[in-house]
Amino acid sequence: MSTTAEPLYSIGVDFGTLSGRAVLVDVASGDIVATSVLDYPHGVMSRHLPSGRELPADWALQHPFDYVEVLATTIPDVLATADVDGSRVVGLGLDFTACTVLPILADGTPLCTLAEFADEPHAFVKLWKHHAAQPYATRITEVAEARGEAWLSRYGGRISSEWMFPKIWETLDLAPAVYARADEFIEAGDWVIRQLTGVPVRSAALAGYKAMWDAESGFPDNSFWAAVESGLVGVGAKLPGPFRPAGSRAGSLLPEMAALTGLPVGTPVAVANSDAYVSAPALGVTGTGDLFSIVGTSSCTLILDESFRPVPGISGCVHDGILSGFFGYEAGQAAVGDIFAWFVRESVPASYVEEARRLGLDIFVYLESLARELAPGANGLVALDWWNGNRSVLVDAELSGLLVGLTLQTTAAEVYRALLESVAFGMRTIVDTFVEHGVAVDTMTVTGGISQKSPLLMQIYADVTGREIRASQLAIGPALGSAIFGAVAAGLAGRGYSTISEAAAAMASRDDIRYLPDQGRHRAYGELYEQYVQLHEHFGRGGSDVMRALRRISAAARE
Amino acid sequence: MSTTAEPLYSIGVDFGTLSGRAVLVDVASGDIVATSVLDYPHGVMSRHLPSGRELPADWALQHPFDYVEVLATTIPDVLATADVDGSRVVGLGLDFTACTVLPILADGTPLCTLAEFADEPHAFVKLWKHHAAQPYATRITEVAEARGEAWLSRYGGRISSEWMFPKIWETLDLAPAVYARADEFIEAGDWVIRQLTGVPVRSAALAGYKAMWDAESGFPDNSFWAAVESGLVGVGAKLPGPFRPAGSRAGSLLPEMAALTGLPVGTPVAVANSDAYVSAPALGVTGTGDLFSIVGTSSCTLILDESFRPVPGISGCVHDGILSGFFGYEAGQAAVGDIFAWFVRESVPASYVEEARRLGLDIFVYLESLARELAPGANGLVALDWWNGNRSVLVDAELSGLLVGLTLQTTAAEVYRALLESVAFGMRTIVDTFVEHGVAVDTMTVTGGISQKSPLLMQIYADVTGREIRASQLAIGPALGSAIFGAVAAGLAGRGYSTISEAAAAMASRDDIRYLPDQGRHRAYGELYEQYVQLHEHFGRGGSDVMRALRRISAAARE
Repeated sequence: MSTTAEPLYSIGVDFGTLSGRAVLVDVASGDIVATSVLDYPHGVMSRHLPSGRELPADWALQHPFDYVEVLATTIPDVLATADVDGSRVVGLGLDFTACTVLPILADGTPLCTLAEFADEPHAFVKLWKHHAAQPYATRITEVAEARGEAWLSRYGGRISSEWMFPKIWETLDLAPAVYARADEFIEAGDWVIRQLTGVPVRSAALAGYKAMWDAESGFPDNSFWAAVESGLVGVGAKLPGPFRPAGSRAGSLLPEMAALTGLPVGTPVAVANSDAYVSAPALGVTGTGDLFSIVGTSSCTLILDESFRPVPGISGCVHDGILSGFFGYEAGQAAVGDIFAWFVRESVPASYVEEARRLGLDIFVYLESLARELAPGANGLVALDWWNGNRSVLVDAELSGLLVGLTLQTTAAEVYRALLESVAFGMRTIVDTFVEHGVAVDTMTVTGGISQKSPLLMQIYADVTGREIRASQLAIGPALGSAIFGAVAAGLAGRGYSTISEAAAAMASRDDIRYLPDQGRHRAYGELYEQYVQLHEHFGRGGSDVMRALRRISAAARE
Repeated sequence: MSTTAEPLYSIGVDFGTLSGRAVLVDVASGDIVATSVLDYPHGVMSRHLPSGRELPADWALQHPFDYVEVLATTIPDVLATADVDGSRVVGLGLDFTACTVLPILADGTPLCTLAEFADEPHAFVKLWKHHAAQPYATRITEVAEARGEAWLSRYGGRISSEWMFPKIWETLDLAPAVYARADEFIEAGDWVIRQLTGVPVRSAALAGYKAMWDAESGFPDNSFWAAVESGLVGVGAKLPGPFRPAGSRAGSLLPEMAALTGLPVGTPVAVANSDAYVSAPALGVTGTGDLFSIVGTSSCTLILDESFRPVPGISGCVHDGILSGFFGYEAGQAAVGDIFAWFVRESVPASYVEEARRLGLDIFVYLESLARELAPGANGLVALDWWNGNRSVLVDAELSGLLVGLTLQTTAAEVYRALLESVAFGMRTIVDTFVEHGVAVDTMTVTGGISQKSPLLMQIYADVTGREIRASQLAIGPALGSAIFGAVAAGLAGRGYSTISEAAAAMASRDDIRYLPDQGRHRAYGELYEQYVQLHEHFGRGGSDVMRALRRISAAARE
């Protein structure tokens, strides 16, 4: 990297579920010198379209113009806050929730912005957690299984309703006019890159993890789609390349976007990335053995390995997916913080709320203070952490939460601890599955909001897994990661870094707290974990169909 | 019955857990013309003796003088309130919680009233819900099983810690001086009868349900006690007869008790009864096929049949136990209202409490108003109602509550409805078990506090069982029942009735609300009940040991 008297900066923009955040980062030190957040004006649309049309259950849509609004607001804001001239910014990177997908015309126009589709839900952005496409995902898995498709093993044997093709097929099936009119279906992250640069480049990582693509064979071929649904033959043409790996430069900032953001025309822009994977360099993870997990409303647990090993129930294993030269493995839990938020909303008694208020404590802090006093197992409870289905290692959105061991003496604090423990048992299941299938796990790093908000959960992770937990105190890992990728995209111009490792070595965050396992508690949790495993296997692997039956009964009753 | 110009009356006294209640009842119409309640001065002693001595966990004692205080206070009070002269009272009956037991001298003196035992917990009355004798109950069941004792099948294969012999053995084991000094151990109800009449007659029903007695073979014999614990050999001599069936006359009011109560010397007094069984005539149940259930904090479900049929998991089947000439079957659920109270204490969110307050509604009424709007199965939840273990049909105190189907969308109102439904599924399990084993169930009556407090639960009972539910609005069924038995005890004197059927035909309460099953909801619940049964069998019959393991782990962790 060239050095100058004045510091140089990179900008990372993290597009989350509810808001977009930009950070301005010192390229030499990795210091975050300014940050700015904008809540999406349309938020997550789960009940109504802007037209007022009602949406069915399990829907979650967004409006693509909100993303542009984030760029136009937050980038000028960080420059102004830090009093930095746009000319000092060497590169721009961004990351996005995925798979978040929209139908567009060949020129990039989103179909939902056409008057004819203003009242058509399928014309909008389907957010990652739009779950209405589950039947299509199930059918795609079945056909792939029946045909012995080689790519299925890269996804742990199961295609998720959150991914690209189930969402596209749902559109074909329920809104064929949208499907016909769409020249392309595109990840929202790739769409934003196209807005910034005018270049129709797509992220190979996003296509790899969410659309069954790989560099050698591309998407599933037409003989597969013919077996699934004849209308899908040719669907690959609606997802044209080129595809570029993470760390590549997508293009340069267009004049109109330069005007919008206050950055110079031609600023290097990195290929879009997923908000999960992009954390790797921000945490200093650039090689094998270092498992890292982003724990927020849900969790995403990632690790690199030099070889492809079929690990059942992982969400994806993609070559060059997280970092170039490695196989990136992704697993996850479909709800973590969401479970605790549910508990506070639907299950914390008024007496707790009053006492927390009296003590001047946030309700989570108060609950944690009570739960901390309980010895492992004393609550007599065990929960299955499937409030939002199970992502890893069962990949089954129809599973649901379970709580057992309730007595007339059970307290709300005991239930809360059982929920923390269930999440840690879910994490242990993932770690154990990696290790059993040959992916070495040497260290564990946790990041995301909960790594700072719940020291108790971090300690329970350590006690349940018997491993040291490094809890990163970096609040905005993805945005920092995107800025690091931005600095690498700028490398060719001589004002950034030439490799991710080099960039991470300079810019990664080292702000973390270490939690050591207590061997006595680890043993106690061993017994409790056996109960978790027994329930996990019984309800998760066909011993009992109760959870699926309850979903079916509930859906019928609500009609 | 002879008629006179002036109405005649009967008095019933119901000795409950916290208070005693007398009613003055018109013998011709069954109208309750006055009622009076006295809280026991000593209440339930679960922490301290009157001496200040502390009590361990699971203890529940009473003071016998409190019962005499009830007679001395409430009987004069009802006479004064109604302005009725004692001479117009034809008979007196009483019912009691059971098994509530005390050690006495041959002359009836309670040991706890002797100075030497004032500080000795085992000398006091052990209330029905004194649960500290569980290990003794477990051992008695084991020995009876090993020896193939015929009587065990009359109790569904399991002896409860609430019953007579576990409580006596606990005394022998922990306070041998009390055991040695006690000439008799006696049901508190029988002890009160002895105070009133001077006659040492015992209730055959109480002995049958709570002390493994029957008219043919008496108590378990000495070879059995030798196998249990040699010190118990001869224990039967501490429970001398005679034993008389419900509806018999125990004796006549002694002069000193006449003076205390304001009733005439010689007033006929009925044999003591249990507060559950005595409701039968008050509800008009005098024959086979009419199941009735007393639903409060827990539930007790009773039915008569002409034959003895071994029904697995019932709490007891006793000849002449409820009404003379019939086999009386008792089943029950160890927690009903207690589960709802737990839910309100530990699981109802502050937002609900605030909204109920704003609307000026009791929290139960508010919860019910929300739960009523939900279609069967729409909540996607099913619970096992085992918060206090399972009494019928599994007879296993180590089982615990379970809730499955939880999602991020689940509301507290949905969980509340799932709890109501689980209780109704538990009821259906009992009804189905009776029917499957040959005990005909033609009609279903529900009484107790919840039959009036929760119209929704009554409707769910109807919809789950597919049967009409008659919800008695009689608030004080046991006291009315006791008054009916008092009127029958008076029959010989020509001022009452000669049979229970005759008395019940005239005096039973007809104040009830009928809930008809909706066939659509019944079908919907059929599907949900299948899920309940699947979980019931898996967790209740050895498919999974998780609940027992959690109890064990919890007990170890709390040490």
